[in-house]
Amino acid sequence: MKILDGKLVREQSLPILIERIKNLSFVPCLAIIQVGNRPDSDAFIRAKKSFATKLGIKNIHIQLDEKIEQDKVLEVINKYNGDSEVIGIIVQLPLPIHLNSEIIIDAISPSKDVDGLTPLNIKRLVDGHDEAIIPATARGIRQLLKFYNIDLFGKKVTVVGRSTLVGKPIALMCLNENATVTVCHSKTQNLEEETKKADVLIVAIGKPNFIDRNHIRKGQIVIDVGISRQLDNSLTGDVNYEEIKDMVDMITPVPGGVGQMTVLAVFENLVDLCYYRNNSN
Amino acid sequence: MKILDGKLVREQSLPILIERIKNLSFVPCLAIIQVGNRPDSDAFIRAKKSFATKLGIKNIHIQLDEKIEQDKVLEVINKYNGDSEVIGIIVQLPLPIHLNSEIIIDAISPSKDVDGLTPLNIKRLVDGHDEAIIPATARGIRQLLKFYNIDLFGKKVTVVGRSTLVGKPIALMCLNENATVTVCHSKTQNLEEETKKADVLIVAIGKPNFIDRNHIRKGQIVIDVGISRQLDNSLTGDVNYEEIKDMVDMITPVPGGVGQMTVLAVFENLVDLCYYRNNSN
Repeated sequence: MKILDGKLVREQSLPILIERIKNLSFVPCLAIIQVGNRPDSDAFIRAKKSFATKLGIKNIHIQLDEKIEQDKVLEVINKYNGDSEVIGIIVQLPLPIHLNSEIIIDAISPSKDVDGLTPLNIKRLVDGHDEAIIPATARGIRQLLKFYNIDLFGKKVTVVGRSTLVGKPIALMCLNENATVTVCHSKTQNLEEETKKADVLIVAIGKPNFIDRNHIRKGQIVIDVGISRQLDNSLTGDVNYEEIKDMVDMITPVPGGVGQMTVLAVFENLVDLCYYRNNSN
Repeated sequence: MKILDGKLVREQSLPILIERIKNLSFVPCLAIIQVGNRPDSDAFIRAKKSFATKLGIKNIHIQLDEKIEQDKVLEVINKYNGDSEVIGIIVQLPLPIHLNSEIIIDAISPSKDVDGLTPLNIKRLVDGHDEAIIPATARGIRQLLKFYNIDLFGKKVTVVGRSTLVGKPIALMCLNENATVTVCHSKTQNLEEETKKADVLIVAIGKPNFIDRNHIRKGQIVIDVGISRQLDNSLTGDVNYEEIKDMVDMITPVPGGVGQMTVLAVFENLVDLCYYRNNSN
């Protein structure tokens, strides 16, 4: 069994990314807009800011009051849409429920949409467009697989989970990579049968240790997108790693797998946006 | 074996649609923008215009020169975006290659996007949003299945074909209907194995008679999206109907199946847009 080591891939990818940043004629700046102060959002933002610093990328962290009006959020986004110093804009999700996420995300200029969640980028992902900015988890998985020379062409991929932010973008990315893709979810009958058929099984359902030996056959590649904190404060994925690790061919650990790739992918997206901008000038 | 009769469903759905139109406080108008004069586009537009007339819907057919500049096309679209009489806008595809389809489609106001191809509507389809305008073929199939009380919930659906206009919207629609969905295409290994596993097999690859008895098992429901004209001038689908009709449980004929539903779905979309507009006023 081989571990697909997200930490290693991230470390090895860093120098290349830093080189691409150095070759730019400007220092990119990322604006992160946060509404409220959810602890999980705080942690994700901290990770992005620290990674930005490591890469020599400027960042602006805008913290807005939890009860802010929608129009005020849109004003902030428009300000950074018009600020030529700012290359990328992230609105940290989830937003408080009084805000309309669709309208707020749609307000981000697609050419600054680091998360790939604006309608134009989603459409480009559906189209398989060359310059689609792909949501970070999907892009991170693609990069991890490429590092280990796992080509999805013609492979059978089963994605468990169909969220808009994670499951569906992963499925579309795999389809664009020429895999035969099956999407399973809570309404799927015979999940075990579906998961066993996969050459590559990607799990993104947010249920700790849900996938066990009953779902697995020998020789599979398993990508675990889940990450949940357990009562004993340890982190675990959607896959029962200990139970299946000796059956599978390759597997991502949690932590140290997909999560490592996701933050990297945000900045790969940002640097792509820099180059697209240069090309269109 | 039962025939899923698109013509019948369309006829039975018409009175309900006409009733919805009568209940509006205005007569809807559809603008169809055509660039050039491809014979296939001519035929599709003719079908839409004649159906519009049948429904008591006004239509404007704008024929633009094949060599028109992109900015001029955008001007025409903007004119109808701003025309409150016009409820829906269709840009007939494909466009001549000197035009950028992405930019042109994106110029249509999402609130007039009868074909459901603007980025916002594609994103809403991905999201499973209640007010997504679903591309006509996908919506037509959904309506056909509902008419025959075929509930996709928990069913295994295999979609063969992954085009942006047809295959992918169908797959996303089925996923939103809670099916377990597999998307196959030209790079799929063991296609026969994949198609046989389906409860509902939907074929949209544009290869006449491609699916034959080797791809089918008894008891399946088969939806044939293809339609090609043969040398003898007859129409045929992607499925070899004669060869498999006695094996399957239900099947759409060609012609008289999905094609009938597609034109209907365009106008179901148009009438939805009328009601969304009323609600937002």
